[in-house]
Amino acid sequence: MPDFSLSTETKELLENVSVATLATALYKRGLRNQVIQDVHPVKRKGRNMVGPAFTLRYMPAREDRNQLVEFRNPKHPQRHAIEICPPGHVMVMDSRKCAYAASAGDILITRLMVRGAAGVVTDGGFRDAMNIGELEMPAYHNRPSSPTNLTTNEAIDINVPIGCGDAPVFPGDILVGDDDSVIVIPAHLADEVAKEAVEMTAFEDFALSKVRAGASIIGLYPATKEESLEEFKEWRAKNGR
Amino acid sequence: MPDFSLSTETKELLENVSVATLATALYKRGLRNQVIQDVHPVKRKGRNMVGPAFTLRYMPAREDRNQLVEFRNPKHPQRHAIEICPPGHVMVMDSRKCAYAASAGDILITRLMVRGAAGVVTDGGFRDAMNIGELEMPAYHNRPSSPTNLTTNEAIDINVPIGCGDAPVFPGDILVGDDDSVIVIPAHLADEVAKEAVEMTAFEDFALSKVRAGASIIGLYPATKEESLEEFKEWRAKNGR
Amino acid sequence: MPDFSLSTETKELLENVSVATLATALYKRGLRNQVIQDVHPVKRKGRNMVGPAFTLRYMPAREDRNQLVEFRNPKHPQRHAIEICPPGHVMVMDSRKCAYAASAGDILITRLMVRGAAGVVTDGGFRDAMNIGELEMPAYHNRPSSPTNLTTNEAIDINVPIGCGDAPVFPGDILVGDDDSVIVIPAHLADEVAKEAVEMTAFEDFALSKVRAGASIIGLYPATKEESLEEFKEWRAKNGR
Amino acid sequence: MPDFSLSTETKELLENVSVATLATALYKRGLRNQVIQDVHPVKRKGRNMVGPAFTLRYMPAREDRNQLVEFRNPKHPQRHAIEICPPGHVMVMDSRKCAYAASAGDILITRLMVRGAAGVVTDGGFRDAMNIGELEMPAYHNRPSSPTNLTTNEAIDINVPIGCGDAPVFPGDILVGDDDSVIVIPAHLADEVAKEAVEMTAFEDFALSKVRAGASIIGLYPATKEESLEEFKEWRAKNGR
Amino acid sequence: MPDFSLSTETKELLENVSVATLATALYKRGLRNQVIQDVHPVKRKGRNMVGPAFTLRYMPAREDRNQLVEFRNPKHPQRHAIEICPPGHVMVMDSRKCAYAASAGDILITRLMVRGAAGVVTDGGFRDAMNIGELEMPAYHNRPSSPTNLTTNEAIDINVPIGCGDAPVFPGDILVGDDDSVIVIPAHLADEVAKEAVEMTAFEDFALSKVRAGASIIGLYPATKEESLEEFKEWRAKNGR
Amino acid sequence: MPDFSLSTETKELLENVSVATLATALYKRGLRNQVIQDVHPVKRKGRNMVGPAFTLRYMPAREDRNQLVEFRNPKHPQRHAIEICPPGHVMVMDSRKCAYAASAGDILITRLMVRGAAGVVTDGGFRDAMNIGELEMPAYHNRPSSPTNLTTNEAIDINVPIGCGDAPVFPGDILVGDDDSVIVIPAHLADEVAKEAVEMTAFEDFALSKVRAGASIIGLYPATKEESLEEFKEWRAKNGR
Repeated sequence: MPDFSLSTETKELLENVSVATLATALYKRGLRNQVIQDVHPVKRKGRNMVGPAFTLRYMPAREDRNQLVEFRNPKHPQRHAIEICPPGHVMVMDSRKCAYAASAGDILITRLMVRGAAGVVTDGGFRDAMNIGELEMPAYHNRPSSPTNLTTNEAIDINVPIGCGDAPVFPGDILVGDDDSVIVIPAHLADEVAKEAVEMTAFEDFALSKVRAGASIIGLYPATKEESLEEFKEWRAKNGR
Repeated sequence: MPDFSLSTETKELLENVSVATLATALYKRGLRNQVIQDVHPVKRKGRNMVGPAFTLRYMPAREDRNQLVEFRNPKHPQRHAIEICPPGHVMVMDSRKCAYAASAGDILITRLMVRGAAGVVTDGGFRDAMNIGELEMPAYHNRPSSPTNLTTNEAIDINVPIGCGDAPVFPGDILVGDDDSVIVIPAHLADEVAKEAVEMTAFEDFALSKVRAGASIIGLYPATKEESLEEFKEWRAKNGR
Repeated sequence: MPDFSLSTETKELLENVSVATLATALYKRGLRNQVIQDVHPVKRKGRNMVGPAFTLRYMPAREDRNQLVEFRNPKHPQRHAIEICPPGHVMVMDSRKCAYAASAGDILITRLMVRGAAGVVTDGGFRDAMNIGELEMPAYHNRPSSPTNLTTNEAIDINVPIGCGDAPVFPGDILVGDDDSVIVIPAHLADEVAKEAVEMTAFEDFALSKVRAGASIIGLYPATKEESLEEFKEWRAKNGR
Repeated sequence: MPDFSLSTETKELLENVSVATLATALYKRGLRNQVIQDVHPVKRKGRNMVGPAFTLRYMPAREDRNQLVEFRNPKHPQRHAIEICPPGHVMVMDSRKCAYAASAGDILITRLMVRGAAGVVTDGGFRDAMNIGELEMPAYHNRPSSPTNLTTNEAIDINVPIGCGDAPVFPGDILVGDDDSVIVIPAHLADEVAKEAVEMTAFEDFALSKVRAGASIIGLYPATKEESLEEFKEWRAKNGR
Repeated sequence: MPDFSLSTETKELLENVSVATLATALYKRGLRNQVIQDVHPVKRKGRNMVGPAFTLRYMPAREDRNQLVEFRNPKHPQRHAIEICPPGHVMVMDSRKCAYAASAGDILITRLMVRGAAGVVTDGGFRDAMNIGELEMPAYHNRPSSPTNLTTNEAIDINVPIGCGDAPVFPGDILVGDDDSVIVIPAHLADEVAKEAVEMTAFEDFALSKVRAGASIIGLYPATKEESLEEFKEWRAKNGR
Repeated sequence: MPDFSLSTETKELLENVSVATLATALYKRGLRNQVIQDVHPVKRKGRNMVGPAFTLRYMPAREDRNQLVEFRNPKHPQRHAIEICPPGHVMVMDSRKCAYAASAGDILITRLMVRGAAGVVTDGGFRDAMNIGELEMPAYHNRPSSPTNLTTNEAIDINVPIGCGDAPVFPGDILVGDDDSVIVIPAHLADEVAKEAVEMTAFEDFALSKVRAGASIIGLYPATKEESLEEFKEWRAKNGR
């Protein structure tokens, strides 16, 4: 699974489109299940999280393997993953949609941020969520969860294909999160989807401005009337889009 | 199902009572399931949404009937409903309590607002929720949901009786939403329930002021002590309620 | 079940540690299920709720026993509990994890606050949540729920052992809530756990300051390297911890 | 809560009607939530279970209070309840709708049967369900659950009002179970509901025989046509009902 | 929505293939959600149910509209639907995946059978399930549910497009049920899918016979080895398939 | 992860004890979550399934990677796993507790049986369950699920540690299934737990015979009375246990 390299250009494009628009662009390509379900920003950041996925897989914890002493192991997969996640990447955790116990806490997530990660996503919950929300790095989870992750989660695999919130995530896939949700763009589609989403966003912004000014959506969204497309062309020229 | 006409007077009364009080007024009449369950304001507005229901029913989407091209149909029920919802009405969507994909997005909801609707409610989720929350018109859903609604929802019927969050909704029923929840008042009960709720609210405000001043709830709430009723009479006179 | 007396000292210690840290301290003692699951602050207070549990148990409501007239009974368990909850205590309600109808509303919760309670927790939902969130006293629930509690809940027992959010709660156990969650500390462990959690918090603050400054978590958290412990000793001296 | 005495006559009547018919009879009296939800026969017996409720309440287990040694206590509430449940009664367990661990196993349930109980119901699950299903005494649960009950359940109260499968159960209420479900008849209604249900059953049997013979349900069920009632009268005479 | 006419030939083909095979045939055509989820035979019949869909839509019941007296109305939609469902059709009920109360009971379902229906499916539950299971006509539901359907369901629409167990069902679609599940075949695809499924079944039977005799699935299922296809040809000739 | 070798002796011991007894034996060792939750026999076999775990991990399916053509790949992990699972082993599938689509069907499971596997377990569902239930090899799942597994599941890893029904499963762990449930015994504990469970079973059989004969459980189960232990000794001698 060779790592697709996220270009600076594509990254910038993806920083300026919504997850909803990206979901539609993937829908056109037959991909319907790429939005991570029931995962929310720990705190809304007003900007997009963008980066390739670096994954961590949890399994149910067995008590004899998950005493606090385990964390003393320098190669404990949860700790190790935090230390080797490449800068610019988004760490994505398969917590089996279980928020009974934490996926991680503020010390680890702060370390991840200091190391240059672009963000973190779990389909479980973070402990110290009140602190994690205040970090500059975006974080997404289901809900705050204070028990130590050893209670129900054992970190078992680093950077393997996983599920997160019922979406498939392969290492290197491009994760984009906005103030609503997070989406997984297959690596090989990132460039073309980014470009298309920027085009779609231009049209949506145009349509929204028309709607605000009183236009009907019929014929405009989608643009089945010829005049809508012409007006859009003018709008783009005028607004430099 | 003749449309009950919501009088300006009743509308004003309903703007000044809480959903909780209305729920109790309906409970007295044997109606126990009129609060739409697990639906929340996209963003709290600090004021009530009030209006007659105009409904939209979704069914599970079948892939061959729900490609993006469908939106080019000017009579597509979702688009059409947005364009014909009468001003002052609340659009209520039966999304089968499924927030996997969106019930609608910001362009459509903005159009609905511009057309004069009083609000919108779905038991699914909105995409572009971060934008919809900023609109002046109140909107309620379960959680943000970014996938296009075609993914799991096909709009199939306009203005028929529906379920929304396990509550029964008939076209013309009066919807009232506050910062906590949304309730469905059967149309024929709206006038009497509005009046009763205003009376109940006056008493609750009186009781709360007494409680804040140190009074016990026993004998006061409910007012089983004669003196509570007398004090209330005085309080009303003094406070113009 | 003699009431353990919460000392002023222990209370102060518990006001300055997180639920996450307390969860780990209890985990060390073999207690894994003491965090109340899926219960959230009605509104974040930025400070801890601390106090012994005073419990209320609800059962499913039977219609003939739960008409509004029941509240006229001065010994109705819900009303009675509010009036006898000792100052400084946290009222904990076993609502069977059912938020279909309210566990209580703002008049009762205000009365509870005026009477000096330290807080209130339900694994159901509060009505008038928008008002309860504005009270100074912390309140925790699952979600706003506007129907009157008679709809599905009958208060049946006061100050008996209960479950709340799948955690066991015995009267007198010490409840601690922060902006993320609420935890139940068995009464006999409160003093020792409080002290230990303060020590753990000092170390966590030290570790976090190191991590912010660029330190790896390996060898630091947990402190498997000797130098980490020495640095911590210096940090404590310097910071008066 | 004085124990209503179940007469032999009422018991016999209840042995010959279905839970569905009883549910309708209670529905006429405004009681809509008396069927225990999502509870099934461990094995269908082809006959009704009938008896007054003797209840056992479980709470979430705290590890330090729920080691295997606890069962050595002769007054352990679970064991004690089995030994004091009056003959002819149905033991009803509030297991908080949690089948993660067992409510009881075959040794205890066999003891209960030998002691003369009429049946046992839990909204959790039984271990050794394959053996319990073979006992002559009817048993109802959600699904087989093999872990020892100490894992998540602590028996805490005997013969108090409880919830079971979201239905309210008071000690002495009459439980009736058939091959589909279990219902809770408030003690004071048992005699009249039993008689009414027998009458309803006679009519239902008549209606079914008509339907089998080709009659339309319109005018027959319910009997809005005069002739239906007359035919019913003849049918009763002929069939000795 | 013109009714597709189910030919005798297609009906016979569909009686001899499994729902699993049909699901794969639809999957090839891009239809992934046609199996009705979490619906089971009331009792296994060892033969397929096949027929065009005749639908009934339920909405949440409002108490004032759902007293027992409603059933006296000869045009009550639930009763009416039973009386007008065309012979050979399968009645499919959208009960909103709610088995709290019944979708119907044995008198109505017996009437449906006597009138010649091919079967009945609900995503809720049947009352008198123990009797319905004994009828010759196949019936599918989620679980037995004894409360009268008025408790939570109001029949509101006959023969409109519905959802059932999250699958889309249009009147006239062909329903096929076996001992495992029920599937919805869009009417216009029924003929071609039936034929294809028979071909697939022949191959599956061949493959299974090979596997039973010790063959590896690699190269056989699917038949990527040329020799597998040749052996299949011989097998068909020999077995008259 | 060296494969623990399951001795013939231990295997035989495990064939004669129940999952419930094994769960208690593991509970004594601090392991509380080893029973696979909500997984049932496709059909009860009246004998135990015993064997070391050989695992298969599924992730959510991405449409472009999961067309039917994928199965033509001779190394497709699902097919490959079936062909390399060692004789005597139990194949355990982590289907993410999702029974929306199948984990496997009868051709693959028959091949697994012919190859000598001891059984198969998924926390999803099998298609062709009606046929799989008739096989001699025991199979366990949540419920029948007819859609092809490509619909929601992509087989991604063979013989890695997984979760199944919220229980941790490591390759080589010993799986035991009876007519109620399936349990996971950590490989290194299998011998001692098997022996202990046989001893416990002897006592349980003794206790059950006493209870059937009228003995109280107090003092007998557990055997806190000295005489119970003596009687047990005699019973063992007499019954050759």
